[in-house]
Amino acid sequence: MPKAVCLLSGGLDSSTCLALARQQGFACYALSFDYGQRHRIEMEAAARVAAALGAARHVTLKIDLRAFGGSALTDDIAVPKGRSVESMGEGIPVTYVPARNTIFLACALAWAETLEAADIFLGVNAIDYSGYPDCRPEFIEAFERTANLATKAGVEGRTRVRIHTPLIRLSKADIVRLASDLGLDFGLTWSCYDPLEGAYPCGACDSCLLRAKGFEEAGIEDPIGRRP
Amino acid sequence: MPKAVCLLSGGLDSSTCLALARQQGFACYALSFDYGQRHRIEMEAAARVAAALGAARHVTLKIDLRAFGGSALTDDIAVPKGRSVESMGEGIPVTYVPARNTIFLACALAWAETLEAADIFLGVNAIDYSGYPDCRPEFIEAFERTANLATKAGVEGRTRVRIHTPLIRLSKADIVRLASDLGLDFGLTWSCYDPLEGAYPCGACDSCLLRAKGFEEAGIEDPIGRRP
Repeated sequence: MPKAVCLLSGGLDSSTCLALARQQGFACYALSFDYGQRHRIEMEAAARVAAALGAARHVTLKIDLRAFGGSALTDDIAVPKGRSVESMGEGIPVTYVPARNTIFLACALAWAETLEAADIFLGVNAIDYSGYPDCRPEFIEAFERTANLATKAGVEGRTRVRIHTPLIRLSKADIVRLASDLGLDFGLTWSCYDPLEGAYPCGACDSCLLRAKGFEEAGIEDPIGRRP
Repeated sequence: MPKAVCLLSGGLDSSTCLALARQQGFACYALSFDYGQRHRIEMEAAARVAAALGAARHVTLKIDLRAFGGSALTDDIAVPKGRSVESMGEGIPVTYVPARNTIFLACALAWAETLEAADIFLGVNAIDYSGYPDCRPEFIEAFERTANLATKAGVEGRTRVRIHTPLIRLSKADIVRLASDLGLDFGLTWSCYDPLEGAYPCGACDSCLLRAKGFEEAGIEDPIGRRP
Protein backbone atom coordinates (compact mmCIF):
# COMPACT_ATOMS: atom_id res chain seq x y z
CA MET A 1 0.00 0.00 0.00
CA PRO A 2 1.67 3.29 -1.04
CA LYS A 3 1.97 5.94 1.64
CA ALA A 4 0.80 9.52 1.31
CA VAL A 5 1.16 12.51 3.59
CA CYS A 6 -2.18 14.32 3.78
CA LEU A 7 -2.32 17.88 5.10
CA LEU A 8 -5.38 18.05 7.34
CA SER A 9 -6.75 21.20 8.92
CA GLY A 10 -9.99 19.52 9.94
CA GLY A 11 -11.98 21.69 7.52
CA LEU A 12 -14.27 20.50 4.76
CA ASP A 13 -11.70 20.62 1.96
CA SER A 14 -8.78 18.89 3.65
CA SER A 15 -11.10 16.24 5.14
CA THR A 16 -12.54 15.53 1.68
CA CYS A 17 -9.03 15.34 0.31
CA LEU A 18 -8.04 12.80 2.97
CA ALA A 19 -11.13 10.71 2.22
CA LEU A 20 -10.19 10.77 -1.47
CA ALA A 21 -6.57 9.76 -0.83
CA ARG A 22 -7.82 6.84 1.22
CA GLN A 23 -10.28 5.83 -1.51
CA GLN A 24 -7.41 5.92 -4.01
CA GLY A 25 -5.64 3.25 -1.96
CA PHE A 26 -3.08 5.27 -0.01
CA ALA A 27 -2.06 4.60 3.58
CA CYS A 28 -2.61 8.13 4.86
CA TYR A 29 -0.27 9.97 7.22
CA ALA A 30 -2.30 12.98 8.33
CA LEU A 31 -0.41 16.15 9.23
CA SER A 32 -1.99 19.04 11.14
CA PHE A 33 -0.50 22.20 12.61
CA ASP A 34 -0.84 24.00 15.87
CA TYR A 35 0.39 27.33 14.53
CA GLY A 36 -1.22 29.66 17.01
CA GLN A 37 -4.44 29.97 15.00
CA ARG A 38 -7.35 31.62 16.78
CA HIS A 39 -9.67 28.81 15.68
CA ARG A 40 -7.83 26.15 17.67
CA ILE A 41 -11.03 24.13 17.70
CA GLU A 42 -10.11 22.99 14.16
CA MET A 43 -7.31 20.87 15.62
CA GLU A 44 -9.89 18.78 17.49
CA ALA A 45 -11.79 18.38 14.23
CA ALA A 46 -8.59 17.22 12.53
CA ALA A 47 -8.04 14.55 15.19
CA ARG A 48 -11.66 13.36 14.87
CA VAL A 49 -11.45 13.20 11.07
CA ALA A 50 -8.07 11.43 11.04
CA ALA A 51 -9.43 8.78 13.42
CA ALA A 52 -12.72 8.36 11.56
CA LEU A 53 -10.96 7.98 8.20
CA GLY A 54 -8.46 5.45 9.54
CA ALA A 55 -5.26 7.47 9.07
CA ALA A 56 -2.16 5.32 9.60
CA ARG A 57 -0.83 8.09 11.83
CA HIS A 58 -1.81 11.63 12.77
CA VAL A 59 0.82 14.20 13.78
CA THR A 60 0.02 17.70 14.96
CA LEU A 61 3.16 19.78 14.56
CA LYS A 62 3.54 22.86 16.73
CA ILE A 63 5.02 25.92 15.06
CA ASP A 64 4.25 29.30 16.45
CA LEU A 65 3.48 31.57 13.50
CA ARG A 66 2.38 34.25 15.98
CA ALA A 67 6.12 34.96 16.24
CA PHE A 68 5.71 36.65 12.85
CA GLY A 69 2.08 37.80 13.04
CA GLY A 70 0.64 39.65 10.06
CA SER A 71 -2.66 37.77 9.79
CA ALA A 72 -6.11 37.99 11.36
CA LEU A 73 -5.72 34.28 12.19
CA THR A 74 -2.49 34.68 14.16
CA ASP A 75 -2.38 38.30 15.24
CA ASP A 76 -4.56 40.88 16.96
CA ILE A 77 -6.43 41.76 13.75
CA ALA A 78 -10.22 41.34 13.41
CA VAL A 79 -11.56 38.58 11.14
CA PRO A 80 -13.65 40.23 8.38
CA LYS A 81 -17.36 39.39 8.49
CA GLY A 82 -20.19 39.42 5.96
CA ARG A 83 -18.11 39.79 2.78
CA SER A 84 -19.89 38.76 -0.40
CA VAL A 85 -18.65 35.44 -1.74
CA GLU A 86 -18.28 37.00 -5.20
CA SER A 87 -15.81 39.60 -3.93
CA MET A 88 -13.58 37.09 -2.14
CA GLY A 89 -11.39 36.37 -5.16
CA GLU A 90 -10.50 40.07 -5.49
CA GLY A 91 -7.50 41.02 -3.40
CA ILE A 92 -5.99 39.12 -0.52
CA PRO A 93 -7.83 39.29 2.80
CA VAL A 94 -6.28 39.79 6.24
CA THR A 95 -7.02 36.16 7.10
CA TYR A 96 -4.21 35.20 4.73
CA VAL A 97 -1.38 33.74 6.83
CA PRO A 98 1.97 34.66 5.25
CA ALA A 99 3.55 31.70 3.48
CA ARG A 100 1.36 29.24 5.37
CA ASN A 101 0.98 26.67 2.60
CA THR A 102 4.69 26.92 1.77
CA ILE A 103 5.51 26.07 5.40
CA PHE A 104 2.88 23.30 5.56
CA LEU A 105 4.06 21.73 2.31
CA ALA A 106 7.71 21.96 3.39
CA CYS A 107 6.88 20.04 6.59
CA ALA A 108 4.81 17.51 4.64
CA LEU A 109 7.81 17.04 2.37
CA ALA A 110 10.06 16.36 5.37
CA TRP A 111 7.69 13.69 6.64
CA ALA A 112 7.20 12.20 3.17
CA GLU A 113 10.95 11.89 2.82
CA THR A 114 11.38 10.01 6.10
CA LEU A 115 8.41 7.76 5.23
CA GLU A 116 9.77 7.23 1.70
CA ALA A 117 6.41 8.43 0.43
CA ALA A 118 6.21 10.15 -2.95
CA ASP A 119 2.71 11.55 -2.56
CA ILE A 120 1.43 14.60 -0.71
CA PHE A 121 -2.23 15.60 -0.67
CA LEU A 122 -3.35 19.18 -0.11
CA GLY A 123 -6.98 20.29 -0.19
CA VAL A 124 -6.48 23.72 -1.73
CA ASN A 125 -9.13 25.20 -3.94
CA ALA A 126 -8.76 27.99 -6.48
CA ILE A 127 -12.43 28.43 -7.37
CA ASP A 128 -14.52 29.17 -4.28
CA TYR A 129 -11.68 30.47 -2.18
CA SER A 130 -10.56 33.50 -0.27
CA GLY A 131 -8.01 34.84 -2.75
CA TYR A 132 -4.95 33.35 -1.07
CA PRO A 133 -1.90 33.35 -3.38
CA ASP A 134 -0.72 29.97 -2.10
CA CYS A 135 -3.87 28.20 -3.28
CA ARG A 136 -3.19 28.75 -6.98
CA PRO A 137 -2.08 25.99 -9.39
CA GLU A 138 1.06 27.91 -10.43
CA PHE A 139 2.22 28.01 -6.81
CA ILE A 140 1.62 24.26 -6.40
CA GLU A 141 3.54 23.47 -9.59
CA ALA A 142 6.49 25.62 -8.48
CA PHE A 143 6.52 23.96 -5.07
CA GLU A 144 6.46 20.50 -6.61
CA ARG A 145 9.47 21.39 -8.73
CA THR A 146 11.29 22.73 -5.66
CA ALA A 147 10.40 19.58 -3.68
CA ASN A 148 12.02 17.38 -6.28
CA LEU A 149 15.22 19.39 -6.07
CA ALA A 150 15.18 19.61 -2.27
CA THR A 151 15.20 15.96 -1.39
CA LYS A 152 17.42 12.94 -1.34
CA ALA A 153 15.01 10.88 -3.41
CA GLY A 154 14.74 13.68 -5.95
CA VAL A 155 18.51 13.99 -6.28
CA GLU A 156 19.07 10.28 -6.53
CA GLY A 157 16.24 10.06 -9.06
CA ARG A 158 14.56 7.32 -7.03
CA THR A 159 11.13 8.83 -6.69
CA ARG A 160 9.34 11.86 -7.95
CA VAL A 161 7.42 13.75 -5.31
CA ARG A 162 3.92 14.59 -6.43
CA ILE A 163 1.70 17.23 -4.82
CA HIS A 164 -1.91 16.14 -5.33
CA THR A 165 -4.52 18.90 -5.23
CA PRO A 166 -7.64 17.04 -6.38
CA LEU A 167 -10.02 19.81 -5.28
CA ILE A 168 -8.19 22.71 -6.88
CA ARG A 169 -10.66 23.22 -9.73
CA LEU A 170 -13.86 22.15 -7.98
CA SER A 171 -16.54 24.53 -6.74
CA LYS A 172 -17.47 24.34 -3.06
CA ALA A 173 -20.72 22.64 -4.08
CA ASP A 174 -18.73 20.02 -6.03
CA ILE A 175 -16.60 19.42 -2.95
CA VAL A 176 -19.69 18.95 -0.77
CA ARG A 177 -21.12 16.46 -3.30
CA LEU A 178 -17.81 14.59 -3.56
CA ALA A 179 -17.48 14.41 0.23
CA SER A 180 -21.02 13.13 0.46
CA ASP A 181 -20.28 10.43 -2.14
CA LEU A 182 -17.19 9.45 -0.15
CA GLY A 183 -19.32 9.10 2.98
CA LEU A 184 -17.56 11.86 4.92
CA ASP A 185 -19.31 12.71 8.18
CA PHE A 186 -19.59 16.49 7.80
CA GLY A 187 -20.34 16.81 11.50
CA LEU A 188 -16.72 15.94 12.30
CA THR A 189 -15.29 18.85 10.28
CA TRP A 190 -14.78 22.49 11.25
CA SER A 191 -14.48 25.56 9.02
CA CYS A 192 -15.12 28.77 10.99
CA TYR A 193 -12.19 31.14 11.53
CA ASP A 194 -13.68 32.91 14.50
CA PRO A 195 -15.80 30.55 16.63
CA LEU A 196 -18.35 32.10 19.00
CA GLU A 197 -17.65 31.15 22.61
CA GLY A 198 -14.94 28.92 21.12
CA ALA A 199 -17.59 26.41 20.12
CA TYR A 200 -20.06 27.64 17.47
CA PRO A 201 -19.43 28.79 13.89
CA CYS A 202 -19.83 32.55 13.52
CA GLY A 203 -21.72 32.19 10.24
CA ALA A 204 -20.21 35.38 8.84
CA CYS A 205 -16.47 34.86 8.18
CA ASP A 206 -15.28 33.96 4.67
CA SER A 207 -14.90 30.34 5.63
CA CYS A 208 -18.44 30.05 7.05
CA LEU A 209 -19.92 31.88 4.05
CA LEU A 210 -18.11 29.69 1.51
CA ARG A 211 -19.15 26.56 3.37
CA ALA A 212 -22.80 27.69 3.54
CA LYS A 213 -22.80 28.47 -0.19
CA GLY A 214 -21.38 25.03 -0.98
CA PHE A 215 -23.97 23.15 1.05
CA GLU A 216 -26.80 25.29 -0.31
CA GLU A 217 -25.81 24.81 -3.93
CA ALA A 218 -25.29 21.07 -3.40
CA GLY A 219 -28.74 20.81 -1.79
CA ILE A 220 -27.30 19.08 1.27
CA GLU A 221 -27.85 20.11 4.86
CA ASP A 222 -24.83 21.02 6.98
CA PRO A 223 -25.06 19.13 10.29
CA ILE A 224 -22.82 21.65 12.08
CA GLY A 225 -25.23 23.59 14.26
CA ARG A 226 -25.44 27.29 14.93
CA ARG A 227 -25.41 28.66 18.45
CA PRO A 228 -28.74 27.65 20.00
CA MET B 1 17.39 50.93 5.55
CA PRO B 2 16.05 47.86 3.73
CA LYS B 3 15.18 44.86 5.88
CA ALA B 4 16.48 41.35 5.34
CA VAL B 5 15.65 38.07 7.03
CA CYS B 6 18.89 36.19 7.73
CA LEU B 7 18.78 32.49 8.54
CA LEU B 8 21.25 31.95 11.36
CA SER B 9 22.28 28.60 12.78
CA GLY B 10 25.18 30.05 14.72
CA GLY B 11 27.69 28.22 12.52
CA LEU B 12 30.52 29.73 10.56
CA ASP B 13 28.67 30.05 7.25
CA SER B 14 25.41 31.58 8.46
CA SER B 15 27.30 33.96 10.78
CA THR B 16 29.48 35.12 7.88
CA CYS B 17 26.36 35.54 5.78
CA LEU B 18 24.76 37.71 8.48
CA ALA B 19 27.90 39.84 8.74
CA LEU B 20 27.82 40.29 4.97
CA ALA B 21 24.12 41.28 4.90
CA ARG B 22 24.84 43.85 7.57
CA GLN B 23 27.82 45.20 5.63
CA GLN B 24 25.61 45.51 2.55
CA GLY B 25 23.38 47.89 4.50
CA PHE B 26 20.48 45.67 5.52
CA ALA B 27 18.68 45.84 8.85
CA CYS B 28 18.98 42.16 9.73
CA TYR B 29 16.19 40.07 11.22
CA ALA B 30 17.95 36.90 12.32
CA LEU B 31 15.97 33.66 12.34
CA SER B 32 17.11 30.52 14.14
CA PHE B 33 15.38 27.21 14.79
CA ASP B 34 14.99 24.98 17.76
CA TYR B 35 14.15 21.88 15.73
CA GLY B 36 15.19 19.21 18.17
CA GLN B 37 18.79 19.11 16.90
CA ARG B 38 21.25 17.18 19.03
CA HIS B 39 23.71 20.10 18.89
CA ARG B 40 21.44 22.47 20.78
CA ILE B 41 24.50 24.42 21.80
CA GLU B 42 24.40 26.03 18.33
CA MET B 43 21.30 27.99 19.42
CA GLU B 44 23.37 29.75 22.08
CA ALA B 45 25.94 30.57 19.42
CA ALA B 46 23.19 32.02 17.21
CA ALA B 47 22.02 34.29 20.02
CA ARG B 48 25.60 35.47 20.69
CA VAL B 49 26.26 36.15 17.00
CA ALA B 50 22.93 37.98 16.47
CA ALA B 51 23.68 40.23 19.43
CA ALA B 52 27.31 40.86 18.44
CA LEU B 53 26.34 41.72 14.86
CA GLY B 54 23.56 44.08 15.93
CA ALA B 55 20.59 42.20 14.48
CA ALA B 56 17.41 44.30 14.57
CA ARG B 57 15.67 41.27 16.03
CA HIS B 58 16.46 37.62 16.66
CA VAL B 59 13.72 35.01 16.71
CA THR B 60 14.27 31.33 17.53
CA LEU B 61 11.34 29.40 16.16
CA LYS B 62 10.53 26.06 17.75
CA ILE B 63 9.51 23.30 15.38
CA ASP B 64 9.99 19.73 16.44
CA LEU B 65 11.45 17.87 13.46
CA ARG B 66 12.00 14.86 15.71
CA ALA B 67 8.31 14.19 15.03
CA PHE B 68 9.50 12.96 11.62
CA GLY B 69 13.03 11.74 12.48
CA GLY B 70 15.11 10.29 9.66
CA SER B 71 18.37 12.13 10.41
CA ALA B 72 21.37 11.66 12.67
CA LEU B 73 20.74 15.22 13.88
CA THR B 74 17.15 14.59 15.00
CA ASP B 75 16.88 10.87 15.53
CA ASP B 76 18.64 8.05 17.33
CA ILE B 77 21.21 7.59 14.53
CA ALA B 78 24.97 7.98 15.10
CA VAL B 79 26.75 11.00 13.59
CA PRO B 80 29.44 9.71 11.17
CA LYS B 81 33.00 10.47 12.22
CA GLY B 82 36.31 10.75 10.42
CA ARG B 83 35.02 10.85 6.84
CA SER B 84 37.45 12.28 4.31
CA VAL B 85 36.50 15.79 3.20
CA GLU B 86 36.94 14.74 -0.45
CA SER B 87 34.28 12.03 -0.14
CA MET B 88 31.67 14.30 1.44
CA GLY B 89 30.20 15.47 -1.85
CA GLU B 90 29.47 11.88 -2.90
CA GLY B 91 26.10 10.66 -1.68
CA ILE B 92 23.95 12.17 1.01
CA PRO B 93 25.00 11.49 4.61
CA VAL B 94 22.72 10.57 7.51
CA THR B 95 23.20 14.03 9.01
CA TYR B 96 20.99 15.35 6.21
CA VAL B 97 17.73 16.55 7.82
CA PRO B 98 14.85 15.90 5.41
CA ALA B 99 13.64 19.10 3.75
CA ARG B 100 15.32 21.26 6.39
CA ASN B 101 16.26 24.18 4.17
CA THR B 102 12.84 24.10 2.51
CA ILE B 103 11.23 24.46 5.94
CA PHE B 104 13.71 27.14 7.07
CA LEU B 105 13.26 29.17 3.89
CA ALA B 106 9.47 28.84 4.08
CA CYS B 107 9.53 30.28 7.61
CA ALA B 108 11.94 33.04 6.54
CA LEU B 109 9.52 33.86 3.74
CA ALA B 110 6.65 34.14 6.21
CA TRP B 111 8.61 36.57 8.34
CA ALA B 112 9.86 38.52 5.32
CA GLU B 113 6.28 38.94 4.18
CA THR B 114 5.08 40.36 7.50
CA LEU B 115 8.15 42.66 7.66
CA GLU B 116 7.61 43.70 4.02
CA ALA B 117 11.19 42.62 3.40
CA ALA B 118 12.15 41.39 -0.07
CA ASP B 119 15.52 39.90 0.90
CA ILE B 120 16.38 36.60 2.55
CA PHE B 121 19.96 35.55 3.27
CA LEU B 122 20.98 31.91 3.57
CA GLY B 123 24.55 30.74 4.17
CA VAL B 124 24.47 27.57 2.08
CA ASN B 125 27.57 26.38 0.34
CA ALA B 126 27.82 23.97 -2.57
CA ILE B 127 31.61 23.60 -2.66
CA ASP B 128 32.94 22.40 0.70
CA TYR B 129 29.72 20.89 1.90
CA SER B 130 28.25 17.64 3.09
CA GLY B 131 26.36 16.69 -0.07
CA TYR B 132 22.98 17.96 1.05
CA PRO B 133 20.53 18.35 -1.87
CA ASP B 134 19.02 21.53 -0.44
CA CYS B 135 22.34 23.40 -0.62
CA ARG B 136 22.53 23.38 -4.43
CA PRO B 137 21.94 26.45 -6.62
CA GLU B 138 19.14 24.75 -8.59
CA PHE B 139 17.21 24.18 -5.36
CA ILE B 140 17.64 27.82 -4.33
CA GLU B 141 16.47 29.07 -7.72
CA ALA B 142 13.39 26.84 -7.61
CA PHE B 143 12.56 28.01 -4.10
CA GLU B 144 12.91 31.66 -5.11
CA ARG B 145 10.46 31.11 -7.95
CA THR B 146 8.03 29.39 -5.56
CA ALA B 147 8.40 32.21 -3.03
CA ASN B 148 7.37 34.79 -5.58
CA LEU B 149 4.23 32.82 -6.40
CA ALA B 150 3.43 32.07 -2.75
CA THR B 151 3.14 35.56 -1.40
CA LYS B 152 0.91 38.59 -1.43
CA ALA B 153 3.70 40.88 -2.61
CA GLY B 154 4.58 38.46 -5.39
CA VAL B 155 0.99 38.26 -6.60
CA GLU B 156 0.43 41.98 -6.45
CA GLY B 157 3.75 42.52 -8.22
CA ARG B 158 4.90 44.90 -5.48
CA THR B 159 8.19 43.30 -4.59
CA ARG B 160 10.27 40.45 -5.83
CA VAL B 161 11.57 38.17 -3.13
CA ARG B 162 15.26 37.44 -3.53
CA ILE B 163 17.09 34.56 -1.85
CA HIS B 164 20.70 35.66 -1.37
CA THR B 165 23.28 32.87 -1.06
CA PRO B 166 26.54 34.82 -1.21
CA LEU B 167 28.64 31.88 0.01
CA ILE B 168 27.27 29.26 -2.36
CA ARG B 169 30.32 29.12 -4.63
CA LEU B 170 33.03 29.87 -2.06
CA SER B 171 35.39 27.32 -0.60
CA LYS B 172 35.47 26.96 3.17
CA ALA B 173 38.85 28.75 3.16
CA ASP B 174 37.30 31.64 1.19
CA ILE B 175 34.51 31.84 3.78
CA VAL B 176 37.04 31.96 6.65
CA ARG B 177 38.95 34.75 4.86
CA LEU B 178 35.76 36.68 4.12
CA ALA B 179 34.59 36.34 7.73
CA SER B 180 37.96 37.51 8.93
CA ASP B 181 37.80 40.57 6.64
CA LEU B 182 34.31 41.32 7.99
CA GLY B 183 35.67 41.20 11.54
CA LEU B 184 33.57 38.22 12.64
CA ASP B 185 34.55 36.92 16.05
CA PHE B 186 34.97 33.20 15.24
CA GLY B 187 34.87 32.35 18.92
CA LEU B 188 31.16 33.18 19.00
CA THR B 189 30.26 30.60 16.34
CA TRP B 190 29.59 26.87 16.65
CA SER B 191 29.87 24.15 14.02
CA CYS B 192 30.09 20.69 15.62
CA TYR B 193 27.13 18.31 15.14
CA ASP B 194 27.96 16.13 18.10
CA PRO B 195 29.51 18.12 20.95
CA LEU B 196 31.47 16.22 23.60
CA GLU B 197 29.96 16.66 27.03
CA GLY B 198 27.62 19.13 25.31
CA ALA B 199 30.42 21.71 25.30
CA TYR B 200 33.43 20.79 23.12
CA PRO B 201 33.66 20.18 19.36
CA CYS B 202 34.18 16.49 18.58
CA GLY B 203 36.75 17.28 15.90
CA ALA B 204 35.64 14.34 13.74
CA CYS B 205 32.15 15.00 12.36
CA ASP B 206 31.76 16.40 8.81
CA SER B 207 31.10 19.87 10.16
CA CYS B 208 34.23 19.89 12.37
CA LEU B 209 36.38 18.49 9.55
CA LEU B 210 35.16 21.04 6.99
CA ARG B 211 35.70 23.85 9.46
CA ALA B 212 39.22 22.67 10.28
CA LYS B 213 40.08 22.39 6.58
CA GLY B 214 38.82 25.93 5.97
CA PHE B 215 40.87 27.49 8.77
CA GLU B 216 43.94 25.50 7.81
CA GLU B 217 43.78 26.50 4.14
CA ALA B 218 43.11 30.12 5.05
CA GLY B 219 46.09 30.10 7.43
CA ILE B 220 43.98 31.43 10.29
CA GLU B 221 43.73 29.90 13.74
CA ASP B 222 40.32 28.75 14.99
CA PRO B 223 39.81 30.16 18.49
CA ILE B 224 37.25 27.45 19.36
CA GLY B 225 39.10 25.18 21.73
CA ARG B 226 39.23 21.42 21.92
CA ARG B 227 38.44 19.56 25.10
CA PRO B 228 41.31 20.30 27.47
